[in-house]
Amino acid sequence: MAKVRLINYGEAPPAARAVFDDIMATRDSDYVNNIWRALASHPPLLGRFWKLMKEVMVRPSRLDPMTKELVYLAVSITNNCEYCINSHIAAARAKGMDDAILGELNEIVALANAGNRLAMGYQVEVDERFKTRFADKPWKAPRKMKKRKAQAGGRRAKRG
Amino acid sequence: MAKVRLINYGEAPPAARAVFDDIMATRDSDYVNNIWRALASHPPLLGRFWKLMKEVMVRPSRLDPMTKELVYLAVSITNNCEYCINSHIAAARAKGMDDAILGELNEIVALANAGNRLAMGYQVEVDERFKTRFADKPWKAPRKMKKRKAQAGGRRAKRG
Amino acid sequence: MAKVRLINYGEAPPAARAVFDDIMATRDSDYVNNIWRALASHPPLLGRFWKLMKEVMVRPSRLDPMTKELVYLAVSITNNCEYCINSHIAAARAKGMDDAILGELNEIVALANAGNRLAMGYQVEVDERFKTRFADKPWKAPRKMKKRKAQAGGRRAKRG
Amino acid sequence: MAKVRLINYGEAPPAARAVFDDIMATRDSDYVNNIWRALASHPPLLGRFWKLMKEVMVRPSRLDPMTKELVYLAVSITNNCEYCINSHIAAARAKGMDDAILGELNEIVALANAGNRLAMGYQVEVDERFKTRFADKPWKAPRKMKKRKAQAGGRRAKRG
Amino acid sequence: MAKVRLINYGEAPPAARAVFDDIMATRDSDYVNNIWRALASHPPLLGRFWKLMKEVMVRPSRLDPMTKELVYLAVSITNNCEYCINSHIAAARAKGMDDAILGELNEIVALANAGNRLAMGYQVEVDERFKTRFADKPWKAPRKMKKRKAQAGGRRAKRG
Amino acid sequence: MAKVRLINYGEAPPAARAVFDDIMATRDSDYVNNIWRALASHPPLLGRFWKLMKEVMVRPSRLDPMTKELVYLAVSITNNCEYCINSHIAAARAKGMDDAILGELNEIVALANAGNRLAMGYQVEVDERFKTRFADKPWKAPRKMKKRKAQAGGRRAKRG
Repeated sequence: MAKVRLINYGEAPPAARAVFDDIMATRDSDYVNNIWRALASHPPLLGRFWKLMKEVMVRPSRLDPMTKELVYLAVSITNNCEYCINSHIAAARAKGMDDAILGELNEIVALANAGNRLAMGYQVEVDERFKTRFADKPWKAPRKMKKRKAQAGGRRAKRG
Repeated sequence: MAKVRLINYGEAPPAARAVFDDIMATRDSDYVNNIWRALASHPPLLGRFWKLMKEVMVRPSRLDPMTKELVYLAVSITNNCEYCINSHIAAARAKGMDDAILGELNEIVALANAGNRLAMGYQVEVDERFKTRFADKPWKAPRKMKKRKAQAGGRRAKRG
Repeated sequence: MAKVRLINYGEAPPAARAVFDDIMATRDSDYVNNIWRALASHPPLLGRFWKLMKEVMVRPSRLDPMTKELVYLAVSITNNCEYCINSHIAAARAKGMDDAILGELNEIVALANAGNRLAMGYQVEVDERFKTRFADKPWKAPRKMKKRKAQAGGRRAKRG
Repeated sequence: MAKVRLINYGEAPPAARAVFDDIMATRDSDYVNNIWRALASHPPLLGRFWKLMKEVMVRPSRLDPMTKELVYLAVSITNNCEYCINSHIAAARAKGMDDAILGELNEIVALANAGNRLAMGYQVEVDERFKTRFADKPWKAPRKMKKRKAQAGGRRAKRG
Repeated sequence: MAKVRLINYGEAPPAARAVFDDIMATRDSDYVNNIWRALASHPPLLGRFWKLMKEVMVRPSRLDPMTKELVYLAVSITNNCEYCINSHIAAARAKGMDDAILGELNEIVALANAGNRLAMGYQVEVDERFKTRFADKPWKAPRKMKKRKAQAGGRRAKRG
Repeated sequence: MAKVRLINYGEAPPAARAVFDDIMATRDSDYVNNIWRALASHPPLLGRFWKLMKEVMVRPSRLDPMTKELVYLAVSITNNCEYCINSHIAAARAKGMDDAILGELNEIVALANAGNRLAMGYQVEVDERFKTRFADKPWKAPRKMKKRKAQAGGRRAKRG
């Protein structure tokens, strides 16, 4: 059972309610999943995570919607996230995944998890031909920053 | 070696340059780490991840800066992320972590990774007293959405 | 450095040599990657893993070749397998992946790893609507097996 | 609940039925576990995974049957696979594991998970004496392949 | 359900009973969690793990009690240990964690899991300035050991 | 490179020196691995982790020394701990592991990592026959504790 109460629309603070509204509008649905209701216990987190999910998974991009779900699922299966496997299998099915594609996905995920351990177990070095070689130059700060730093004089830059 | 070229300030597209500027201003430094230069190979990703990092790790909040770094480190050590361990140990040291605190952190991380496997290996059930019990009510959509759905008639809501 | 010597064609035992031949023929290349040369230290493993890789990743199926590589990569990145990330980024690029798609892949993998932990950290329960409900019936052994078991009399079935 | 229906013997397609028959014959049992019934939703996967399991875990080899199960369990506990922990503890008990050995296994698994994080958290470098040093020579393709490549002329070898 | 019987006080062997007594005394409680009752199936493991938990998590040290629990939780969430997440959220709440801090913790854990994969997915190299440079000298054994080794003559040192 | 300086015998504080002495005596060697020299940066951690390692891995027990190393390795490979894989392959070879056994180990580890994901990806439920059923009774505190609690009156027991 969730470690916080699942917030309902009627009791949500305005910031959370606005996110719930956007979720329903984006999905053209009057349902909001449990995960969003749990995140509403900390509204800034709800807002940030929904924004990210919407921009990365919903907004059209180079990869088609089902492929995105398959990649999301591959990670969720590898990490054994029960909630995520269940909700994203539903999402992938809604985007065209059938039992045969689920079977292919599961087999590639299993094979990759196996292959990863063979490479690790034997500590195999990357083949020379797979190594990328860029003429990476060290970071060169823009003049304006250098000037600013100079003006700041002895003040030591903080690193974060 | 990174799988994309590390972008420098002078060659960055405007969207990436704006993020580089904000990183330097936020940190009051004229240096930009390799991770941001790699992410600049896909500017929308650079923008989103930096925004998140700034809001979660830099903006003042309930947890103090060093504690945040310790939590970030605990995850990075558990996942064995060499880049992250190196950069966030530097960040944590800048916020007050010394060898004794690093020692405590490493021991708690090791202990938790051990304790996790004892609970898993014996498949121990959660104690009744640790289970949270909320009077969770099922999701109740707001009236406006229900009306919208009704108007949409037979059109089936898409779930995403 | 690999924990076994990387076997060369000239010194490989016949079983390993046959696999090397099939790898080169399948890929129409005269090069064999380090991973296969390491696995050749235990020929039965080499034979089985190559057969699997060929049937799952090379043989045409419902998922297109680049999508398969993206799924394989999503797993390898989640597990931080340096060898696999390097070799399968090369493979994915050969099948059409460019920097923008790599950017999308990395962002979905990052997002899924984040989302997985939010669902875990709050211990969110699966929504009723995502639960699958099949009329699963218990296993019913075929008559022939039952007969065989009956003939075997008191001999207890071994479970493996 | 499983994300596909658990196939029963009577409804299984011939390819799946043949695997079910082999599972029962190999184990001298008329029972087939849930995992195989789930994999039967994609028969090629069922066939390949059972073949592998049989060759690696059932066929006699250098490691004795209980040790194999302990290694399988160590992985399953580290990955927190509930299904696998339950079924392979049953298998290991059938091969001689008692509570004391389970206790030893769980403690080594916990200790290794802890020790792994100490080495990672401090980023300890491998001792010179543990590094393997083989006179690894670069891959040298057999003459026949070179000839074939030469005949193919300008046709560039594809890497897979 | 646990894979061993949960031992009760009345039936515990003396070694386990002494640990139960110490747990109750240390926590000033007459309750012993399920994990300790499961570990009691192998008393040496129970004794060692409790001793460690007490010295690392209970004994006062540089990090305050709530911070220690947050670090323990960050690991448990990353590893998806249901038992540990439930019991240590209870422990953290008892030490002052509220919903807002739990929200911050979950967001940092999610962010770190994401950031880890971006660094891995792009295989970003550690910045020169984050690399630690110690004048590490090779191990120099004390004279007494050298003498002992010399006396032992040809007897080869065993490495463990 | 390690994130702390590797402590040498001559400069170690007495607590660390005593552990170094015990490591060398236990292993009958005048060499101390890098991991112990790194842990010496926080002597209490060094003492506790060495004690555990000695009691669990060195002290004779039901499992033979090579099997213990194989279990330790299975975990280290699954977690991709470079330091641990290198040092424990050396340890396992010293206890009898050859290339064929390493091959078997790596294949079982790969197979288990694959099998784990098939069970997770399909969310297969544990077979009824693999579920353990113990007549677990709730915790019953000893009379002496109950009396103590009664005497403490309103003082609330702290849970840790």
